[in-house]
Amino acid sequence: MTGLSQIGVAVIGVGSMGRRHAENLLRAVPDARVVAVVDANAELAKKVVSDLGVDGCYSEVPAALERKDVDAVVIASPSRLHAPTIRAAAMAGKHILCEKPIATTLEEADAALAAVESAGVCLQVGHMRRYDPAYADAKRRIENGEIGRPVIFKSIGRDRELPPMSYFQAGGMLFLESSIHDFDLARWLVSDEITEVQAFAGALITPELEKYGDVDCGVVNLRFSGGAIGNVESYRHAGYGYDVRTEIVGSKGTLQVGYLEHTRETVLTAGGAAHDIVADYLTRFADAYVLEVQDFIETVRKGREPRVTGRDGRNALAVSLAAQRSYLERRPVAITPTNT
Amino acid sequence: MTGLSQIGVAVIGVGSMGRRHAENLLRAVPDARVVAVVDANAELAKKVVSDLGVDGCYSEVPAALERKDVDAVVIASPSRLHAPTIRAAAMAGKHILCEKPIATTLEEADAALAAVESAGVCLQVGHMRRYDPAYADAKRRIENGEIGRPVIFKSIGRDRELPPMSYFQAGGMLFLESSIHDFDLARWLVSDEITEVQAFAGALITPELEKYGDVDCGVVNLRFSGGAIGNVESYRHAGYGYDVRTEIVGSKGTLQVGYLEHTRETVLTAGGAAHDIVADYLTRFADAYVLEVQDFIETVRKGREPRVTGRDGRNALAVSLAAQRSYLERRPVAITPTNT
Amino acid sequence: MTGLSQIGVAVIGVGSMGRRHAENLLRAVPDARVVAVVDANAELAKKVVSDLGVDGCYSEVPAALERKDVDAVVIASPSRLHAPTIRAAAMAGKHILCEKPIATTLEEADAALAAVESAGVCLQVGHMRRYDPAYADAKRRIENGEIGRPVIFKSIGRDRELPPMSYFQAGGMLFLESSIHDFDLARWLVSDEITEVQAFAGALITPELEKYGDVDCGVVNLRFSGGAIGNVESYRHAGYGYDVRTEIVGSKGTLQVGYLEHTRETVLTAGGAAHDIVADYLTRFADAYVLEVQDFIETVRKGREPRVTGRDGRNALAVSLAAQRSYLERRPVAITPTNT
Amino acid sequence: MTGLSQIGVAVIGVGSMGRRHAENLLRAVPDARVVAVVDANAELAKKVVSDLGVDGCYSEVPAALERKDVDAVVIASPSRLHAPTIRAAAMAGKHILCEKPIATTLEEADAALAAVESAGVCLQVGHMRRYDPAYADAKRRIENGEIGRPVIFKSIGRDRELPPMSYFQAGGMLFLESSIHDFDLARWLVSDEITEVQAFAGALITPELEKYGDVDCGVVNLRFSGGAIGNVESYRHAGYGYDVRTEIVGSKGTLQVGYLEHTRETVLTAGGAAHDIVADYLTRFADAYVLEVQDFIETVRKGREPRVTGRDGRNALAVSLAAQRSYLERRPVAITPTNT
Repeated sequence: MTGLSQIGVAVIGVGSMGRRHAENLLRAVPDARVVAVVDANAELAKKVVSDLGVDGCYSEVPAALERKDVDAVVIASPSRLHAPTIRAAAMAGKHILCEKPIATTLEEADAALAAVESAGVCLQVGHMRRYDPAYADAKRRIENGEIGRPVIFKSIGRDRELPPMSYFQAGGMLFLESSIHDFDLARWLVSDEITEVQAFAGALITPELEKYGDVDCGVVNLRFSGGAIGNVESYRHAGYGYDVRTEIVGSKGTLQVGYLEHTRETVLTAGGAAHDIVADYLTRFADAYVLEVQDFIETVRKGREPRVTGRDGRNALAVSLAAQRSYLERRPVAITPTNT
Repeated sequence: MTGLSQIGVAVIGVGSMGRRHAENLLRAVPDARVVAVVDANAELAKKVVSDLGVDGCYSEVPAALERKDVDAVVIASPSRLHAPTIRAAAMAGKHILCEKPIATTLEEADAALAAVESAGVCLQVGHMRRYDPAYADAKRRIENGEIGRPVIFKSIGRDRELPPMSYFQAGGMLFLESSIHDFDLARWLVSDEITEVQAFAGALITPELEKYGDVDCGVVNLRFSGGAIGNVESYRHAGYGYDVRTEIVGSKGTLQVGYLEHTRETVLTAGGAAHDIVADYLTRFADAYVLEVQDFIETVRKGREPRVTGRDGRNALAVSLAAQRSYLERRPVAITPTNT
Repeated sequence: MTGLSQIGVAVIGVGSMGRRHAENLLRAVPDARVVAVVDANAELAKKVVSDLGVDGCYSEVPAALERKDVDAVVIASPSRLHAPTIRAAAMAGKHILCEKPIATTLEEADAALAAVESAGVCLQVGHMRRYDPAYADAKRRIENGEIGRPVIFKSIGRDRELPPMSYFQAGGMLFLESSIHDFDLARWLVSDEITEVQAFAGALITPELEKYGDVDCGVVNLRFSGGAIGNVESYRHAGYGYDVRTEIVGSKGTLQVGYLEHTRETVLTAGGAAHDIVADYLTRFADAYVLEVQDFIETVRKGREPRVTGRDGRNALAVSLAAQRSYLERRPVAITPTNT
Repeated sequence: MTGLSQIGVAVIGVGSMGRRHAENLLRAVPDARVVAVVDANAELAKKVVSDLGVDGCYSEVPAALERKDVDAVVIASPSRLHAPTIRAAAMAGKHILCEKPIATTLEEADAALAAVESAGVCLQVGHMRRYDPAYADAKRRIENGEIGRPVIFKSIGRDRELPPMSYFQAGGMLFLESSIHDFDLARWLVSDEITEVQAFAGALITPELEKYGDVDCGVVNLRFSGGAIGNVESYRHAGYGYDVRTEIVGSKGTLQVGYLEHTRETVLTAGGAAHDIVADYLTRFADAYVLEVQDFIETVRKGREPRVTGRDGRNALAVSLAAQRSYLERRPVAITPTNT
């Protein structure tokens, strides 16, 4: 795998996330070249190709995978398409950066990982928070022992507002698409697997989500294999902004990431003290997304192990599915993480 | 009861909490007179009587209750003595301010409430956080609709360090003595009853607590009767200070109380930015404790309904006991709150 | 003076400040008794006497000073009356707690100090910030060497809004009544005298102040005898609240007091993040005012040196007058502090 | 000048600042090409050329200016060389981005501006803070009237530590190299010229600076032509980090930029609460430096007026020189800003 001078990339799915990946590859990764864009929405694909000056424009994945100059794919299509696209890309010998979740069932996830394994390609999963400078530094501090042994993991993820209803097609999207970031952080920052979860959740603000088996808020208790515990809160209707905060409580202290200090301005008027709150994930994690694709291309060039592996993606998915089941069945649900 | 010019009070139990109550009554409640102190530790009782200039010194409760000039008692003895002392005081016709929990079982709690009811005395429960200016203001803001309808209740309670091992005599003290404050806040601030809890907990830092059936950390998921959800975290080993924070997330925004802004000084040196963290509950809630006894005496004088009722104490206890059971039995536990 | 069991106090001037002093003496100083109230506004005096249950009600100072049971006076009348009242009280052998400034000219100040000296009474000046727990702790930290040697002193004092125009009767009230608190802090926290000032100021929001020779905003550069420098900003129209902040920059770090962390609540809504700002000095320095009168009474009882001396009051006044002169004459002005 | 497809740039002076400019041009400005590097230190020039893959390497300016493919220069050499280099570049018909100060005397500045004017080239001055997202947003808010009319301008600029003594060669470098950023912000954010300053300053930590006529701390009072006032503090020995904060106080409220919220992590241990402080200007203003060179290249390409003009550079320099004179002559010094 080493020796590739410039990596040709096809971006599959160019909604806001996929388009951002394409832009970052173009602007910030000299060793990559975006050679193709794929989107089922042909108009959207054409617009992106035209805006960014990309050569190949496709509305279906196989045509893009046939290109010889495509060394790698970035998958940012809807979640239910992730696993089949990973399999197709792996069979075509392409390296893969795939958005989370890597699948919507464990069976699909395992099949996708097997295809990757057998093809010998690189699969990196889009848990971009690991690339965020603050989270990366938190990881370093924890490993340095600054807070002692992690005992309690807490995380909050709140979106400013619900995605459009067209976004909801299957149950469990709160846990599968949002909380999964926190589950990945939990595994990574505590350096341990989650083995049991218990969730209370509901469609409290948008009751029509119930017909999709979905919810707009949830609290998930976590138990780690080594005894540590935790809780993840997810909410779709924060209203005031995009609010992601994590706290790792250890035997010697606690470490907080992201307590809304997302701005360097404060305005004080008769109406009170006010500062802006970050609006969305593309703003909050702008740096992380750049670092993520840079690292992915470097990983492909060097033929090294990715920083976020298929197993990471699979085990975070397992926690999300268990949280959804706990909500539906009103009981704690155990998880069997895989080590391979 | 109206018409009492000055209320005679016996303080029962004068460890750090009871002594503080006695001092506050002396210094800040002109309408009260501390006429007796009771403590099984006769030396301690003597010292407090001498330090504060109180008349009556007792090592047993009945002797103090016999005093005609005792109109009310403040109960700050160990938790397992609360319910029997409430019953004895009620039977003696004394008004009661009792520290939480009002009992260690629901049966005892109900018996104590029945005794109070039948004696027609006033019982106020020591959930002093309701008197904290910040929490009181939070309640006002929520009722004003500033954050819309409460959807998620979050609370953290961390002690700087474990009490001495002599403090532990029965199981469940984390939930019964610490988390109970957060359960009371939850009921009060959401204006709803908690109907189901699920707890993960452990004796992670001090494994010897297990022999008492106790734990040093816990996360408890909450479900409210109206659909809202929540989580309460409790921890005995924060190390860095006494850290109490609450957040109520609503349909229109969120309200945070107590994010460590407990100081007005920041020191910046080559070692980083630093500010003090409040050390303990007597410091953090100093104002609340004063306001609590002032309100209690005023309530007794005016013969009005107490701000924190026996039912409040009983229902918070029910949540604590359910959390402990959820931990032991590894399943969610339902709660049947009483409305009377 | 030692041996006095309870100190009889006359409060002279019972506007909002004087009334607060009277209340604090009544509620929080068991060793004091407020035996007389004086105010040129007889109605106001009567109301305070009636509200607080004080015995003696006077509209002129001499009558109150004649009372044998008056051991001490608290002077909270308009500034121009401070010096003559100090002289009268001293001649009557009364101990004195006087609001700042102790006079409106240095000549008057020196005459008042001479009267105090010759009468052998105690004079404490109302620089209450020295009693604020945060400032007191800052002093302790500086003396402990936490920030090394003080190099730059910065202070900001902003009122929410201008006092009523009836308050303005003489020039220089911004420096004499507001900035003087910061000048006192400067002297105290740097442990050095200010020897030169330079001021830019103006009546920018309320031009009608110019006819009184007064201003509504000012910045005053400071030079200390040992070489340290500094700046004090004062503003009458902050609008958003009462904002007092001080920073002492040293050779090893910096210490900030009061960066608006005056609340323990934050509300986040679509309108942004908001927290309350303290409204006025009676709220911000509520504790300090209590501690101040407690210390004054204790000082009188013990016959010890007051914590804020007449010399402190005199030298802070000298800085205020120099700042006003610098503004008027558009040049730096030197100060000769007194050491006696 | 319009129609240029890619702008060839020579970077003159490749210490840490110049090297950063070269890197930013290479990485973040597709429309620019760094074709030459100049540094009197030939070794350093060679290293940068080699590290960054630049074609031309020079130890003297004229040789670089002779290159036909050099359309523009970025001047980041020592301050005393700025004005002569501007003149030489202008005479060679090159567009110019010059670090502040544009000169070390007003005469030189005016001569440089005249050369630029007569050559018809573009000159942009390196007041990069105007490109910082927080400051840019502050400017927008002020213009939107969020704080009303600006009344008081405050700014603090503290370096973590003194530059090496080899950096000091002429007097007044604190005001000419550091405070000048704050003077530029003052002019820009208040939208007015500074017409008078008064400075107190000293070499308090490093007395050996006195032999260069330099100081390590200073406070400068400002008066604006429209009546607003202000103060700028500069300090070379903060120790704890690079600390830049600005506050603009208006008739309706105040706006603070940069109160040390430069991190998204807080660590709480028994040692207290701690968060990192930004270390240096290259870190704090990383985004601003990128946006600055991007805007410069775009300005050159479009032949438009630069966002920070030669007049801006000249008038900020005038304030710096007046501050130095005020310090030396111990009197307020008036400034005559130029409008052309």
